[in-house]
Amino acid sequence: MLPENAEDFRTIWLHPEDDGVVQIIDQRELPHEYRIHDLKCWQDGVEAIADMYVRGAPLIGATAAWSLYLAARVSPDPEAELKSAASALLDSRPTAVNLRWAVERVLQQIAASGTDAHLSAITRSEAEAICAEDIEISRGIGEHGLQLLRAISKRKNGATVNVLTHCNAGSLATINWGTATAPVYFAHQQGIDVHVWVDETRPRNQGSQLTAWELAANKVPHTLIVDNAGGHLMQHGMVDIVITGTDRTTRCGDVANKIGTYLKALAAHDNDIPFYVALPSTTIDWESRDGVKEIPIEERDAAEVTDIYGVVDGVKTVVRTTASETPVSNFAFDVTPARLVTGLITERGICAASEQGLLELFPEVKDGDD
Amino acid sequence: MLPENAEDFRTIWLHPEDDGVVQIIDQRELPHEYRIHDLKCWQDGVEAIADMYVRGAPLIGATAAWSLYLAARVSPDPEAELKSAASALLDSRPTAVNLRWAVERVLQQIAASGTDAHLSAITRSEAEAICAEDIEISRGIGEHGLQLLRAISKRKNGATVNVLTHCNAGSLATINWGTATAPVYFAHQQGIDVHVWVDETRPRNQGSQLTAWELAANKVPHTLIVDNAGGHLMQHGMVDIVITGTDRTTRCGDVANKIGTYLKALAAHDNDIPFYVALPSTTIDWESRDGVKEIPIEERDAAEVTDIYGVVDGVKTVVRTTASETPVSNFAFDVTPARLVTGLITERGICAASEQGLLELFPEVKDGDD
Repeated sequence: MLPENAEDFRTIWLHPEDDGVVQIIDQRELPHEYRIHDLKCWQDGVEAIADMYVRGAPLIGATAAWSLYLAARVSPDPEAELKSAASALLDSRPTAVNLRWAVERVLQQIAASGTDAHLSAITRSEAEAICAEDIEISRGIGEHGLQLLRAISKRKNGATVNVLTHCNAGSLATINWGTATAPVYFAHQQGIDVHVWVDETRPRNQGSQLTAWELAANKVPHTLIVDNAGGHLMQHGMVDIVITGTDRTTRCGDVANKIGTYLKALAAHDNDIPFYVALPSTTIDWESRDGVKEIPIEERDAAEVTDIYGVVDGVKTVVRTTASETPVSNFAFDVTPARLVTGLITERGICAASEQGLLELFPEVKDGDD
Repeated sequence: MLPENAEDFRTIWLHPEDDGVVQIIDQRELPHEYRIHDLKCWQDGVEAIADMYVRGAPLIGATAAWSLYLAARVSPDPEAELKSAASALLDSRPTAVNLRWAVERVLQQIAASGTDAHLSAITRSEAEAICAEDIEISRGIGEHGLQLLRAISKRKNGATVNVLTHCNAGSLATINWGTATAPVYFAHQQGIDVHVWVDETRPRNQGSQLTAWELAANKVPHTLIVDNAGGHLMQHGMVDIVITGTDRTTRCGDVANKIGTYLKALAAHDNDIPFYVALPSTTIDWESRDGVKEIPIEERDAAEVTDIYGVVDGVKTVVRTTASETPVSNFAFDVTPARLVTGLITERGICAASEQGLLELFPEVKDGDD
């Protein structure tokens, strides 16, 4: 079912024969089934975001944009539908900053256009543009990050470059190429000997179920490890660089990413291993500074921790691993302070994880912007 | 099936009606079933240790001692059986230092006794002594560690004392009371408001499946978290103290414990939270100094990572969570350097995680002992 050519891979697209349907991969079924899911109304889009059919900041943004396109097609009152859709979309995942960015971008485009007659065309065009731009962003991140991997490969005289990553900031989190994985894919394409340690990423297992899946699909050597293992690997020289994604980066370079990222950053720091975060600039929250204090951390359903998806004799099953009465807490993200981040890999280049570093790359953001 | 009185709980015991059978809890079935398993020959004991029916340094030692008792009962050549059993037991879990301690202790007792006639009685008496002494060790750790929790409770004016623990260094890892959990049980018995954050402890889920089970059995408030979550909790003041167990402690205070312990120690250090390790002195390896360099780390079966035990509609099931071809690495332990350990809680008292600290508590170990 997957396109043969990695260039053609997409995580969201308009149905080729029905422009009232947007299609996504139901990522909850991976790696055991590659299932295409149809979004037929904006409510389907909200559900896809809230229930994590799709995840990853850029893909969430794109799904929101396409959901607004679906809202704009509803008659007789597309404006009311757009208003309801925008509100529901913004509430669907509170941590994802470029969910808001995508929704506001589409709404601004509508406002700038004036007439109601072309709402559907305006939103479609904007959703398409968001996807095309995202691919270019991933490409930029990949090309800049590639230089880091090339330098390590050179220093090691061509020996394997071991990258550790947490969660899935891969093709599946974007439209294609990913953020944290884009440098890896580009290095692999260029013949650099690269190997990825894939953190399982409890509780939702995005590493074992998504990152491992897409690395295998692209024939990139990789090894799955439990989230507990990275520190040991780093102590023993088995990791050359850590690259993760982020859901939100503050103006000062603090990084909110999947729970457990902070622990890997601490281990990298303790072992003098470079820790990079790859991000599209759309996920920078220029209005926040201190991530630990300011970024609200989503708490999710206990079932994510207690119930695990897998297969038994080829049949997909969800098992409960704990006693039924066990109390559970499930924070979805943590914040890695900028002091632990070696650098930020953006589509414009690599910068220090600091206000100064970010403003040098993005001078159009005025100093007093917050 | 569990004794009503926590004092009477045991993890290994001689069958009350058949002194040719040693009984254990098959901990692989917890928390979904409390199943007693019979060890009828020393090979059963080796299997119980290697396949982790039992785990935890003290209980592994006790199981080895009772396995030698079973070997000593074999006719016509118990000495040959003891030799085979000792060799197989020592190979069954390479990291567990007090497996060796228990085997050597029983063999020395036999050597000191001379005649073959009472091999069975000698080994039984020694196995019983090892168990009785272990309970006293846990009691000592509990009483010393209790003082730490009492001091935190006092400082917080009686507000909840939040303890984070990793893996299971509980009753189930010892004969009763545990090591890391003993202070918690004693504090709870004395009316101190104590709550435990239970790390799930991938890949074998000893936290979610064993520690949560025994805390619930003893009515101690607790909350299960994924291994990734502890850093976030510490950043936000939700952890007052970390207490873990250890499989092996070097002369200089480095601590080999379940994979992931090092990451929690880093987070505790980064947030100025005390990180204590509870240990019976039998798990101190006086002959090693640098844990990261010297302690061999066991690699275990990939299936521990890919396959997860749980229940579906009340039926126990093992699911595979990953794609079948995903490559896996499974290091079972990591080493936490002494610089990250606030103190060691032993049966004799609490000391600094250093050679000097340990030698002050154990002056009978001569300086040149290594």
